[in-house]
Amino acid sequence: MKAIVAHAAKDLRIETHDMPTPGPGEVLIRLERGGICGSDLHYYNHGGFGTVRLREPMILGHEVSGRIETCADDVSSLTQGDLVAVSPSRPCYACSYCLEGRHNHCVDMQFYGSAMPFPHIQGAFQEYIVADARQCARAEGLSAGAAAMAEPLSVVLHAAKRAGDLMGKRVLITGCGPIGQLCVMVARAAGAAQVAATDVAPFTLLKAQAVGADVTHNVAEESAALERYTSGKGHFDVLFECSGVATALSAAIPALRPGAVIMQLGLGGDMTLPVQMMTAKEIELRGSFRFHAEFFTAVQMMKAGRLDVTPLITQTLPLADAVAAFDLASDRGQAIKVQIQF
Amino acid sequence: MKAIVAHAAKDLRIETHDMPTPGPGEVLIRLERGGICGSDLHYYNHGGFGTVRLREPMILGHEVSGRIETCADDVSSLTQGDLVAVSPSRPCYACSYCLEGRHNHCVDMQFYGSAMPFPHIQGAFQEYIVADARQCARAEGLSAGAAAMAEPLSVVLHAAKRAGDLMGKRVLITGCGPIGQLCVMVARAAGAAQVAATDVAPFTLLKAQAVGADVTHNVAEESAALERYTSGKGHFDVLFECSGVATALSAAIPALRPGAVIMQLGLGGDMTLPVQMMTAKEIELRGSFRFHAEFFTAVQMMKAGRLDVTPLITQTLPLADAVAAFDLASDRGQAIKVQIQF
Amino acid sequence: MKAIVAHAAKDLRIETHDMPTPGPGEVLIRLERGGICGSDLHYYNHGGFGTVRLREPMILGHEVSGRIETCADDVSSLTQGDLVAVSPSRPCYACSYCLEGRHNHCVDMQFYGSAMPFPHIQGAFQEYIVADARQCARAEGLSAGAAAMAEPLSVVLHAAKRAGDLMGKRVLITGCGPIGQLCVMVARAAGAAQVAATDVAPFTLLKAQAVGADVTHNVAEESAALERYTSGKGHFDVLFECSGVATALSAAIPALRPGAVIMQLGLGGDMTLPVQMMTAKEIELRGSFRFHAEFFTAVQMMKAGRLDVTPLITQTLPLADAVAAFDLASDRGQAIKVQIQF
Amino acid sequence: MKAIVAHAAKDLRIETHDMPTPGPGEVLIRLERGGICGSDLHYYNHGGFGTVRLREPMILGHEVSGRIETCADDVSSLTQGDLVAVSPSRPCYACSYCLEGRHNHCVDMQFYGSAMPFPHIQGAFQEYIVADARQCARAEGLSAGAAAMAEPLSVVLHAAKRAGDLMGKRVLITGCGPIGQLCVMVARAAGAAQVAATDVAPFTLLKAQAVGADVTHNVAEESAALERYTSGKGHFDVLFECSGVATALSAAIPALRPGAVIMQLGLGGDMTLPVQMMTAKEIELRGSFRFHAEFFTAVQMMKAGRLDVTPLITQTLPLADAVAAFDLASDRGQAIKVQIQF
Repeated sequence: MKAIVAHAAKDLRIETHDMPTPGPGEVLIRLERGGICGSDLHYYNHGGFGTVRLREPMILGHEVSGRIETCADDVSSLTQGDLVAVSPSRPCYACSYCLEGRHNHCVDMQFYGSAMPFPHIQGAFQEYIVADARQCARAEGLSAGAAAMAEPLSVVLHAAKRAGDLMGKRVLITGCGPIGQLCVMVARAAGAAQVAATDVAPFTLLKAQAVGADVTHNVAEESAALERYTSGKGHFDVLFECSGVATALSAAIPALRPGAVIMQLGLGGDMTLPVQMMTAKEIELRGSFRFHAEFFTAVQMMKAGRLDVTPLITQTLPLADAVAAFDLASDRGQAIKVQIQF
Repeated sequence: MKAIVAHAAKDLRIETHDMPTPGPGEVLIRLERGGICGSDLHYYNHGGFGTVRLREPMILGHEVSGRIETCADDVSSLTQGDLVAVSPSRPCYACSYCLEGRHNHCVDMQFYGSAMPFPHIQGAFQEYIVADARQCARAEGLSAGAAAMAEPLSVVLHAAKRAGDLMGKRVLITGCGPIGQLCVMVARAAGAAQVAATDVAPFTLLKAQAVGADVTHNVAEESAALERYTSGKGHFDVLFECSGVATALSAAIPALRPGAVIMQLGLGGDMTLPVQMMTAKEIELRGSFRFHAEFFTAVQMMKAGRLDVTPLITQTLPLADAVAAFDLASDRGQAIKVQIQF
Repeated sequence: MKAIVAHAAKDLRIETHDMPTPGPGEVLIRLERGGICGSDLHYYNHGGFGTVRLREPMILGHEVSGRIETCADDVSSLTQGDLVAVSPSRPCYACSYCLEGRHNHCVDMQFYGSAMPFPHIQGAFQEYIVADARQCARAEGLSAGAAAMAEPLSVVLHAAKRAGDLMGKRVLITGCGPIGQLCVMVARAAGAAQVAATDVAPFTLLKAQAVGADVTHNVAEESAALERYTSGKGHFDVLFECSGVATALSAAIPALRPGAVIMQLGLGGDMTLPVQMMTAKEIELRGSFRFHAEFFTAVQMMKAGRLDVTPLITQTLPLADAVAAFDLASDRGQAIKVQIQF
Repeated sequence: MKAIVAHAAKDLRIETHDMPTPGPGEVLIRLERGGICGSDLHYYNHGGFGTVRLREPMILGHEVSGRIETCADDVSSLTQGDLVAVSPSRPCYACSYCLEGRHNHCVDMQFYGSAMPFPHIQGAFQEYIVADARQCARAEGLSAGAAAMAEPLSVVLHAAKRAGDLMGKRVLITGCGPIGQLCVMVARAAGAAQVAATDVAPFTLLKAQAVGADVTHNVAEESAALERYTSGKGHFDVLFECSGVATALSAAIPALRPGAVIMQLGLGGDMTLPVQMMTAKEIELRGSFRFHAEFFTAVQMMKAGRLDVTPLITQTLPLADAVAAFDLASDRGQAIKVQIQF
């Protein structure tokens, strides 16, 4: 069977691997769709990010859906042929964080396609994967593409939960990649009174408007765009920072009301921030990292028709064109979410 | 000018009163619409409720909209002709609760149409009222009927804020009068994954479905309807109790998950409750009473098109037919919200 | 070895049982002290409470400490001779509540000395018990009596955590049995500005004063004692209800400020409550049930000298006098916590 | 009467000003004690901080106590001779933040001794001041020195309230000036299981131990002191950052557990922070600025004997020695809080 393996920056190969075999509690899944995430692009384009670097070949991918091919004898919750969204989160279920229900901080997390530990955790862009039945959410009624969006949607639902009640709030989103777009959608679905979004790419801003942003600002064209929101000590109640760019975050601070919450989703290394202003305005900067229980909520919300993420899937390419898919996904002028068809 | 005055149970009169004159900070408003609330109906049908009784004639009404007729010289935020929603909440702005921003607990509240203090606080069902400019929310773009719904919507937004984040949650609503219907709408607008509602009147349950309930149960026909939700220690995360009926609340407890939140909106005197089960399941029963800042949020949400409350206005009658309007509003078989046109 | 077995109301026997043998992950513990809890007393005096009844002989006890006698080979965290507090909470670690970190709601909980399921869960009043190493908190530096207080202290720390920040708050405690006394201590340790307590037994009120209550009221002598706290809509910010008596709870409501939190710890069946007043005052009634992670916090707080619970251990009797110990513990005129020495 | 006036860096003068006269709602206060705060020292030593600079002579001081000399006729809550702590916070009570009960964010705040607006807000280091009766908390039973500590204690109680429940938590304090010392005290009074503190001055660390720190680290001597707390993803649950120094904050991040809360009290301009690590650990950085209602809580807690702040008053000098007092207060080798006796 085929797998998509990153060897180094710009060295992505489609290789043949052995078929895996499910053990107790596990299932064999034939992959349907795999979405390319920002971290996949970092490995592909730069061989990693920050101190996280490829040190050996690693299968990429962690946003996947597929159909159950076989189940271990002790798995009764799934049946051959079921379409499932597969969570890439594989915590140990035994460390102190897992016992507190905060599995995303598991000290022995085995998250698909991560170069953080060594040996690396291999990813899910394979024609067949073996997964724990606990990773699988039944996705009947969804398209395979939508099911593969459960992972990034989970990231955003986790952040939204941490942000608290959004009903009637004014929400700003900085950075309109896939995560930012999902923040627009989720903020609208949670009852935000106003949703504004910023980015530097016109294509992403048009998409943000299409999926629910009330207003967008291109901060490449108008760097001081957010100054219009600074009177009376600020305008927005919540910021979802999805760019990982320090200037995006810093420029937003004056536009936030005292006591505003910043959900920091973007990963961008060290940042120089106006901490004195943040302190005087009693702003809360909350990191948000991955998810856990939200994966099943994400699938449930899509199945109930509450959220339709399919407009974000801008392109779907066959496995044979994986390199082209990665190049396309790197182009913010024409792509939001690119998926691979297995 | 005319006013609608309750003298005793079933003794409602349209009387002629003197025109009021605005003082500093005040405006004169020509009323457009007034919605009949459950408390108005209690005064009309029973002369009061619990220990709150009519002891002198009282003008009813606290859900009103109108147009600015004149403004005091020192009022610059409003202009003649403006359509405004008028908040019936008139706190003292000086007691300890007001200073904490919890104006709904003001020790000297002057809420329109309340027989609680004596002399009673006269209501707003008058052709002209004088109001503090702070009570007025500009409602341009809304119908006068929608603007008059700002008050009950505020009650529900206040309860929803106290309930916290509803995204992905399972929500039950017991009692589908106007407040229950608005809870259905707001729960949907806040991203609830499932919304279920119960009542005893088929008309209200059909309306609940029309405005967003995923499932409804007629507990008059099937008293044990909620038992289907009791396996695994319960199903719903949040209950909005809008009936004020002890059996409705008690029957819902087994259907709630451990740690579930009950927002108690219904007012119904003493209740015998399964406190031992509530304790063992760590359920939180939170009273929710009136609103304050939410009034402006309510108008904003309607103006932004986030919530359309007009399907709940089932009938509108002219002032001359006020008694008929109160009789109609008392009939749960055909009315949700009845409004009077002034 | 000996065990304390309840056969029916007033039929408590000291019986000889076989020694248990630890399996993987387990330890054998020689019991030092066992505290008699209110539920033990219900089984002893009445054969149960509410619908929870003895249907077969059951070893009582769930507040215990002991010394490690032997450890399974795979247990490295404990050593022979260690003094340990033993948590009676044995959740499944696999159900949805366990996975959320809310083990106290485990659907398959095996809590020591509970007649709720059948066959009953046998208790810990035995000369030797086998426990999972995860149940054991090392208690070096504590007395065996203090270590056996970890369980009720955990119950109170759990409730206090659910009550939120108590710094500068006014706290009322209704019911001064062991749990109420610990609430007094914990409220003081959490920085409460004022701690008041009520009961009907003078002995318990004197003890409450000794362990930190600023003021106490005997509501048997002065049933309207709390009316002095009702002006300005109420006085207390938080109520720890530890009596399980409806009149105690109802009488406290008018003495609570709007928005006050009631932590309901007392278990007392159905209660008739002034729900309308609770709603109008936006009071929150929160059930609090058992604990989980707080067990280790409790031991840590005692070891750090932050809380000294030993004044609450009013009597310690040898195992041979178990029946006398239960009778003594039933007498609120002279006992707070009675422990048995094994 | 005399006043302490800053004209420029190192230009502090004792000048003669006219006596003020109280208007309606006001009182005339003869000052007893005034504590020198970090911001006073910035004006004295550097003529300001960041963009906040002296542009005209400004009376310093905002931590003061005194005795009521005369009351306006309409003031009944205070009597001649009363010792009062005087809050320097004078919000407008009318802007949107005041109406929400968040007076510390008032858009028209008149906080004593602030060069932020121009003309500057004059301070309280005067022999007589006129204050609104609402600013005054009766402090009978306290020393004048303790009463003058109400202001910095309020700052810390506000931060502690925003930090939430501290019972059983591990707390780190970076920076052991007066605010840091009060954080040590308040964390202990709130039930923290462990309190650790860092600074670069041995004198401050000894004082921190004396007032309740379990452990202290001199990060001038051992820059990597906090690395011992980094295993298992970190140790502390809460950080009170009181230094305003970026390296202090950055060095603490790895020692914090995932989900830890940082209360940022120190004001230090822009900071370069490890935002990626903060995001991955889901750390919450919350600014905390001034206080409002906590001022009265602070006085109440001192009067109830819950907090004894007097060990922090290291020196008290007469008004004539004001310059010496400011020099002494600038020396972290021998002073925590220096007060001036008026």
